[in-house]
Amino acid sequence: MTIQAAFYTGHKTFTLEQKDAPAPGPGEVQLDVAYVGICGTDMHVFHGNMDARVGNHRVIGHEMSGTVAQVGEGVEGFAPGDLVVVRPLAHCGECPACQAGYTHICHKLKFLGLDTDGALQEKWNVPAHTLHKLPQGMSLETAAMIEPLAVAVHDIRRARLQAGETALVIGGGPIGMLIAMVAKHVGANVILSEINPNRLKMAAEMGFTGLNPREGDVAAQVTEITGTKGADVVFEVSGTQPGVDLMTAAAATRGRICMVAIHAQKAQVDLFRFFWRELEMVGARVYEAVDYDQAIQMIADGLDVNRLITDRHPLAAVQQAFEALEGNATAMKTLIKIGETA
Amino acid sequence: MTIQAAFYTGHKTFTLEQKDAPAPGPGEVQLDVAYVGICGTDMHVFHGNMDARVGNHRVIGHEMSGTVAQVGEGVEGFAPGDLVVVRPLAHCGECPACQAGYTHICHKLKFLGLDTDGALQEKWNVPAHTLHKLPQGMSLETAAMIEPLAVAVHDIRRARLQAGETALVIGGGPIGMLIAMVAKHVGANVILSEINPNRLKMAAEMGFTGLNPREGDVAAQVTEITGTKGADVVFEVSGTQPGVDLMTAAAATRGRICMVAIHAQKAQVDLFRFFWRELEMVGARVYEAVDYDQAIQMIADGLDVNRLITDRHPLAAVQQAFEALEGNATAMKTLIKIGETA
Repeated sequence: MTIQAAFYTGHKTFTLEQKDAPAPGPGEVQLDVAYVGICGTDMHVFHGNMDARVGNHRVIGHEMSGTVAQVGEGVEGFAPGDLVVVRPLAHCGECPACQAGYTHICHKLKFLGLDTDGALQEKWNVPAHTLHKLPQGMSLETAAMIEPLAVAVHDIRRARLQAGETALVIGGGPIGMLIAMVAKHVGANVILSEINPNRLKMAAEMGFTGLNPREGDVAAQVTEITGTKGADVVFEVSGTQPGVDLMTAAAATRGRICMVAIHAQKAQVDLFRFFWRELEMVGARVYEAVDYDQAIQMIADGLDVNRLITDRHPLAAVQQAFEALEGNATAMKTLIKIGETA
Repeated sequence: MTIQAAFYTGHKTFTLEQKDAPAPGPGEVQLDVAYVGICGTDMHVFHGNMDARVGNHRVIGHEMSGTVAQVGEGVEGFAPGDLVVVRPLAHCGECPACQAGYTHICHKLKFLGLDTDGALQEKWNVPAHTLHKLPQGMSLETAAMIEPLAVAVHDIRRARLQAGETALVIGGGPIGMLIAMVAKHVGANVILSEINPNRLKMAAEMGFTGLNPREGDVAAQVTEITGTKGADVVFEVSGTQPGVDLMTAAAATRGRICMVAIHAQKAQVDLFRFFWRELEMVGARVYEAVDYDQAIQMIADGLDVNRLITDRHPLAAVQQAFEALEGNATAMKTLIKIGETA
């Protein structure tokens, strides 16, 4: 059968093409894709920064929701009509990371939607082991937020954030906002450092203390808010040098810093402060199965991630959707609606 | 009564003076000092780098051993003749760090021998709560190594090093060597990165794999030695940018980095690697009571820290002892012998 798919073809261009949709192979499941979210990584692809990895004829997209269309040979536990999301990771099973149980950061990890074709197409065949089933009746629009929410859940878990602690989130993009929401959900007091007034407004509406580093000394403000203690946990999500300066300056003695951002260049880090206050820093990358389970449960429990969805476009308008995100100060999360099922 | 004391008087100079030795006050114990080790921090004082903190008339010295001479009012559990070492920390009890139980990194921590007069004198009055009693018969010369050994024990504990793991120690000075020794003591495989051939020779004699970054790519060698895995734990003790580069390059996925060194300037850190391999870094500063207990037990169990003692001088030669350490490629630990008791 023939379906429509959006191929990234280089030079800031997506090309809609008709392609054949093969039946799912052994161990695979074919999905009717419902919604696909646009991630910062997808924007990097759009900007041509990842051409060496994705090439110039790749269906991208990995934040998604959908329904099972067909199951391949040997697949158990899934049936047509099941609502699902994909945890888009394929590990090797043999490297030291896999052997130690850290399959999500496998040394040869393949990321579905970057290293293989992804979700910006009407039907998508994926290995059954990547699927998480959703409760019947869950909104597929909301469910498209599960992948980025699972990132935030993983970050919170890596940082061991506890109820009653103060969390400072540096950077209020979609991941920063989701971390702040999960932090509040687990009972932490949340401070968000962000320079965009629209995002600070959203933060205030969600009950976070918003601080603008362009208008004051955030580290001094955090110290004051916490009665000289500092933040118990800091999430560095900005990917900037000022963010890295703030993370050590604002952390409490024995505070934990979670490194969420992708720093393409080495940054200047105050290692003296690590020594002096016995700080801890943990890197956090993607998610494990348990993070998906928790993210699904949080949405089932009513965590209102929908408020982060600011824009919606049909698959036919994928080019315009990416272009509209460039330098957009009010957009948070854009969804591409693919199928008719949702 | 009158005793002899070595005062740091600025300008790379120690002055021997006769001074009065007051009786111990309430809660204090007067010690007959036996041995005092010279620490890197003491060398910083000697070089004038800490004049703002210590002034120009200060008895320094904090790595020590001795015997109880007199106990002050209200002191229980100690009697004249007891062999003891001092954990030279005085905390405020009120700051957020103290309130959280981290008294050793109190926000207003006073360090005995820097912020108050220290051990380079014949008799030293200290608060009883700083004392750890030694097993009768333990060599007081060996016991002078307990303070730096407790630093190493604290570092190992902060890094959660386990038997069977591979530990990379970057920097083979006294603290690096003690970390390597404790790492071996707990059953780890120890690799030491060091540029000084004398120290590499000592490392080989102690059963560590010595690697010289001037002669090869240490990260590549660690990767090879560990079958592509990398080091489970890395101790950065060098305080250098190449050491900071190596710590991330050589660490395994989910590897733990312990920041032992004092980096006076911010360093360039590969934060991408923290993200990519989900690395962890913990700062480690001084020690807690349990670290002293463990250090004393390790020496009682026969850990041969004596081999690190390369030089011994009487108190009268304290000036020469410090001068002899300048640019000394073979010295490891210098002890000043104070009393007659040892």
